[in-house]
Amino acid sequence: MAEDMLLPQGFRTAGVHCGIKADAENFDLALFATDGPSTAVGVFTQNRVCGAPVKVSRERVPRATVRAVVINSGNANACTGELGLEDARWMTAAVAERLGCAADDVLVCSTGMIGHFLPREKLEAGIPQVADQLADTPEAFANAARGMMTTDTFQKQSVRQTELGGKTVTVSGAAKGAAMIAPNMATMLAVVMTDAVLSPEEADGMLRDVVDRSFNCINVEGHTSTSDSVILLASGATENGPLDDDGRQRLQSMLNEVTEELAMSIIRDAEGAGHFITVDVRGLATRADAHCIARTVADDVLVKTAITGNDPNWGRIVSACGRTGVELGEEHITLRINGTLIYQSGAPVEYDEAAVSDFMRDNRDVHIELDLTLGEQSARFWTCDLTQEYVRLNSELTT
Amino acid sequence: MAEDMLLPQGFRTAGVHCGIKADAENFDLALFATDGPSTAVGVFTQNRVCGAPVKVSRERVPRATVRAVVINSGNANACTGELGLEDARWMTAAVAERLGCAADDVLVCSTGMIGHFLPREKLEAGIPQVADQLADTPEAFANAARGMMTTDTFQKQSVRQTELGGKTVTVSGAAKGAAMIAPNMATMLAVVMTDAVLSPEEADGMLRDVVDRSFNCINVEGHTSTSDSVILLASGATENGPLDDDGRQRLQSMLNEVTEELAMSIIRDAEGAGHFITVDVRGLATRADAHCIARTVADDVLVKTAITGNDPNWGRIVSACGRTGVELGEEHITLRINGTLIYQSGAPVEYDEAAVSDFMRDNRDVHIELDLTLGEQSARFWTCDLTQEYVRLNSELTT
Repeated sequence: MAEDMLLPQGFRTAGVHCGIKADAENFDLALFATDGPSTAVGVFTQNRVCGAPVKVSRERVPRATVRAVVINSGNANACTGELGLEDARWMTAAVAERLGCAADDVLVCSTGMIGHFLPREKLEAGIPQVADQLADTPEAFANAARGMMTTDTFQKQSVRQTELGGKTVTVSGAAKGAAMIAPNMATMLAVVMTDAVLSPEEADGMLRDVVDRSFNCINVEGHTSTSDSVILLASGATENGPLDDDGRQRLQSMLNEVTEELAMSIIRDAEGAGHFITVDVRGLATRADAHCIARTVADDVLVKTAITGNDPNWGRIVSACGRTGVELGEEHITLRINGTLIYQSGAPVEYDEAAVSDFMRDNRDVHIELDLTLGEQSARFWTCDLTQEYVRLNSELTT
Repeated sequence: MAEDMLLPQGFRTAGVHCGIKADAENFDLALFATDGPSTAVGVFTQNRVCGAPVKVSRERVPRATVRAVVINSGNANACTGELGLEDARWMTAAVAERLGCAADDVLVCSTGMIGHFLPREKLEAGIPQVADQLADTPEAFANAARGMMTTDTFQKQSVRQTELGGKTVTVSGAAKGAAMIAPNMATMLAVVMTDAVLSPEEADGMLRDVVDRSFNCINVEGHTSTSDSVILLASGATENGPLDDDGRQRLQSMLNEVTEELAMSIIRDAEGAGHFITVDVRGLATRADAHCIARTVADDVLVKTAITGNDPNWGRIVSACGRTGVELGEEHITLRINGTLIYQSGAPVEYDEAAVSDFMRDNRDVHIELDLTLGEQSARFWTCDLTQEYVRLNSELTT
């Protein structure tokens, strides 16, 4: 159930255009601030070549005293050496000065084209401006979500609320563009906020769990960017005390729903995509095996291009299962596409191919279901097709 | 040095159209036969979902008494269950009957669209026909190379000769289309022949070594097909006795050259490709690390589309190095594109981007050189770019 796009208690946000991007309508600076010391945890890119803000933020979490996350878009501050690190630290210090806290209590993210130094003079003017506009309104939340965007065509927000211990607890998240979908190398960023009371240890476990089931289950073209970051902030403003098991479980469910919704909206906004594809893999011995098969099918250029052509090409899907390295044979595989049984226990079955293809042509959503007979574990992955438009966007000279 | 396209001594080949493909000009059946019992070894797809011919041939090698390899194109006989296995065994028996040998001494390959049963009646007429046409001429060799083709636009052959122990030793190979480049799912197949005297053990070691440096170093879109097979046949017809160390080394060099030339011609004929890309990775602790980086860069959709657009996008290449899992930092990376230094020890350098881009526009070949500072090992990989034409070809409905 989607609520209004409210911020949790104890948060104020803002987004502005400070001049990193050429067009004044495109915001390029976002600030997520808390009213007091808050729990913050993060999950960052596994790319060994990572942006300076990732290096700076990774050192500062988990932490119980964070006051803000500052994000610039339009210029990723990655592969910029020692000066890039100085720029990232300077950004946190500039924000800390406005909020009256220590620089170490500010986290930083950056997204956009890599390999260019940050235009510090623009941020010098922009940071006071964005700090001045901090507010706890839905509009301020939307502005912060816009300030993170690169080639995204819409801002990505998600909110859930529930009662915990007699208090209304809110989880609100904002995210931007998937993986490296952008012509100039983009990033997947998300900030998730809650007013529940969470220790850094609790928050860390919860974030890792939900990221594994949301942002780690989406894919555009398989390139993990240099700047991916997901940060969870817990202000504790509800003052509802430490969570019991039931409360923790319900909060985790909300976090799951918010991160899943943000992850899916990243795929819905993937560059040049014509189809939104859900891959369900069931019946494996381990979740890792199920995830590996789901990811390989979702990654497969030939599966993606078949779907672009509305072609229920089961051969490419079954063959992709086989190339994962998971110990299986075709006799273990049963495949449905949009509910139609196409391949059963190692052999193709008769089905109405024209009807399945027509349905794919007329509907954006494609559901691939793979049922194996090797165990009880499952995984779900979301991806998009690969179109001529994607190739065009990503092969245009960017300078 | 390319020789005339001669067969080694002790080999006869043929290729015909037997009606699997619609167009009578497209050959669809190839036969590679030896005059007497020959050494045969093979390397097959690592896809767990593999074609019936792979299952049948894999059981029969290494072997010292092989007499033929029969290959049909236009229909892959993969994912066809028990009947597919019967069909594959029947093909070898039908060839054995014509050659007067045991069925187990015949190997079989198959390539084309998967999931359809072989048209046995067409092969019943075709096998006697192809056996009758066996000859040791360059024309017969070319016909066999044509009989393996699917969406290939030219036949792929390579020949090397040298003197070993006073005798002329020849290595001749034929191959077809890379990985799963074809709209209907194709295959990489190669047959390499020599008249040198080789035991199955010697031949097996040599083949694995050269395949690792040739066919395992090419890539179109990263999908290992269900039917990939490389077979090495040694007739021993030169009767030059067991090879000494020098002879073995020189034979291995020839095998290397032949398989490398075939692998490169597969990439030169990749569907829809605009650029032929060589990725050289040097300076790693292990060859596995170097190979992993080379393969990841060669696989990367964003690197490929940048090259499609003649864009020397170093960020995508450096980031791809980082996402391999190999322990490295950007400070260890130096990058050249077509000889121009672009990124050095972790920082971009000034260079004439327009000149590099213009050169890419005017030349089909792109050379990516990555020099790291982590060791002495290197790897070379060949791939092609990813074009709108590739997506169009692979997203056309195939029925």
